[in-house]
Amino acid sequence: MTDIKMTLTEAHDLALSCLIANGLDDVNARAAADRMIEAERDQCHSHGLFRLPWYAGGVASGRVNGKARPRVEKLAPAVVKVDGDNGYAPLAQQMAHAPLAAAARENGIAALALTNMYHIAAMWPEVEALANEGLCAIAVTASYPYVAPAGGIKALFGTNPMGFAWPRKDAPPLVFDQASSAMARGEIQIAARDGHSVPETAGIGPMGEATTDPNVVLAGAQLGFGGYKGASLAMMIELLAGPLIGQFLSFEAMEDDAGRGGPPKGGELIIALDPARFGDADGFMAHGEKLFTAMLAEEGTRLPGMRRFQCREVTAAEGITIPQSLHQEILALLA
Amino acid sequence: MTDIKMTLTEAHDLALSCLIANGLDDVNARAAADRMIEAERDQCHSHGLFRLPWYAGGVASGRVNGKARPRVEKLAPAVVKVDGDNGYAPLAQQMAHAPLAAAARENGIAALALTNMYHIAAMWPEVEALANEGLCAIAVTASYPYVAPAGGIKALFGTNPMGFAWPRKDAPPLVFDQASSAMARGEIQIAARDGHSVPETAGIGPMGEATTDPNVVLAGAQLGFGGYKGASLAMMIELLAGPLIGQFLSFEAMEDDAGRGGPPKGGELIIALDPARFGDADGFMAHGEKLFTAMLAEEGTRLPGMRRFQCREVTAAEGITIPQSLHQEILALLA
Repeated sequence: MTDIKMTLTEAHDLALSCLIANGLDDVNARAAADRMIEAERDQCHSHGLFRLPWYAGGVASGRVNGKARPRVEKLAPAVVKVDGDNGYAPLAQQMAHAPLAAAARENGIAALALTNMYHIAAMWPEVEALANEGLCAIAVTASYPYVAPAGGIKALFGTNPMGFAWPRKDAPPLVFDQASSAMARGEIQIAARDGHSVPETAGIGPMGEATTDPNVVLAGAQLGFGGYKGASLAMMIELLAGPLIGQFLSFEAMEDDAGRGGPPKGGELIIALDPARFGDADGFMAHGEKLFTAMLAEEGTRLPGMRRFQCREVTAAEGITIPQSLHQEILALLA
Repeated sequence: MTDIKMTLTEAHDLALSCLIANGLDDVNARAAADRMIEAERDQCHSHGLFRLPWYAGGVASGRVNGKARPRVEKLAPAVVKVDGDNGYAPLAQQMAHAPLAAAARENGIAALALTNMYHIAAMWPEVEALANEGLCAIAVTASYPYVAPAGGIKALFGTNPMGFAWPRKDAPPLVFDQASSAMARGEIQIAARDGHSVPETAGIGPMGEATTDPNVVLAGAQLGFGGYKGASLAMMIELLAGPLIGQFLSFEAMEDDAGRGGPPKGGELIIALDPARFGDADGFMAHGEKLFTAMLAEEGTRLPGMRRFQCREVTAAEGITIPQSLHQEILALLA
């Protein structure tokens, strides 16, 4: 099986055509394709074209609104809400960016409640975009119940990632986006697909048994990173992306899905802070660089997000590759 | 050596007298004693009377201002700053509580920059106090450089804890307060003292070598919990409690201490959110309970913070005990 090579533009065209052929209108399809190709561009394949069949299926099943018109609303001076109108997340996320940035500048800090959206993917694009404008940002979201609480064996929390970005002056922002689970769900799925094992810290089987088989973990429960501390973070994120903003907890999202296996419906919380309003407007950026310089002074260290920015240069020049099997699956969705 | 038993009131009187005898004025001494006795009440001994000699020494050395007059300032509509005037943290933290809560209610979300304070202890008292008023809160602080960045071997980040609290209706708030490092510094020191080993995940030796010897870890670097992900959190917290609010990074705090071994000077960031302003004012609290009920449905699970609340009932009835050696040390400071 050979890989299929294409430019980023070709990949975007392919995603766009596929999404439009499967029930998304132009504006929703463009936002979703933008997001998928940003992931491919940074070689985050689990959020790239890999997701296309899933996106197509969600609209076909009638659950996801392919013609969503998200609504922006101010709930409080520093709280912006964007209701996703039951569409895929990318359009609501794109529309929410400017109102959130404005509220953060005005108040020093602001929160964005993104609601009624399907399939919130990687969150680094949102926080990176805010940091590109000089803001610091934290984003969290829940998903489906995949992670066991500390001491438990039943999957209850989502893999619940936290994204963070910090602005830099003459460099791309410092960005991380990491699951509260030891491994991302997509990574375990890809390990299962490719017949690879996973570390024992990744999860447990249905009876709580230790395993390195990704299929057994997928049937059992993932574990928080670092054990109970990662589980505490996952719990915090459940509360922030669920009850705080009136959206599903991970297990409620699964109940809502009712076995259809579609993308999760839920919410996302983003907190944006304007460092220029925190008392060190002239110094904060150089001060952050002192930390990064100290980190990079050692051999073997790198700043979170650097790999993605390096990949970005490579894919801009050389394009991307996707497995032929995935390519054929996408072409079938276009037929 | 027997333990000394006392009521919480007696313990508070003892702390207050000792602090006043060692250079704190009444208002600073009361705030510090309140905080220490809250810790004793919850049987968090490492933040309790154990710290009294250290507190006394900090003022005696001339570094810490025992007569601090913290200044409250509004930096932006949703940003409160409290400058600690180089005193111990508790007075600034107490004074900051009401303005932060008010700003959160007014704007939906607000941030507190606590600056120029010495020895930020456990952060659960601050976040718990906010949750007692129906707010959700996140607190972070840096300290001294103990934790290596991902891929590095040199200690650069503090153990950098994150505190979180969520309000509950007929129960004490849900609260956690956990270090970004795999183990607390004190736990490793105690293992070294007692000749016990530590898990390999706790830290590395000076050359980056794997070790289970706590003395080698203390000479080398601690590791983030869950490896690089905990290190990412520690880095995020450095930025939020340091450059964002114009305060020291952990390695700068160590430089400032210049080998004197006193309490670290630094800052703390608290973000408070008012769930009543996030779109589900009537439902958020019952919604959170759905998660806690699901967590507690499994045998072996518990909610973070529950142990402390149980201890609180015990110490209210039975008082506390401290080692006789500590009691004698405190009495000597009173003489």
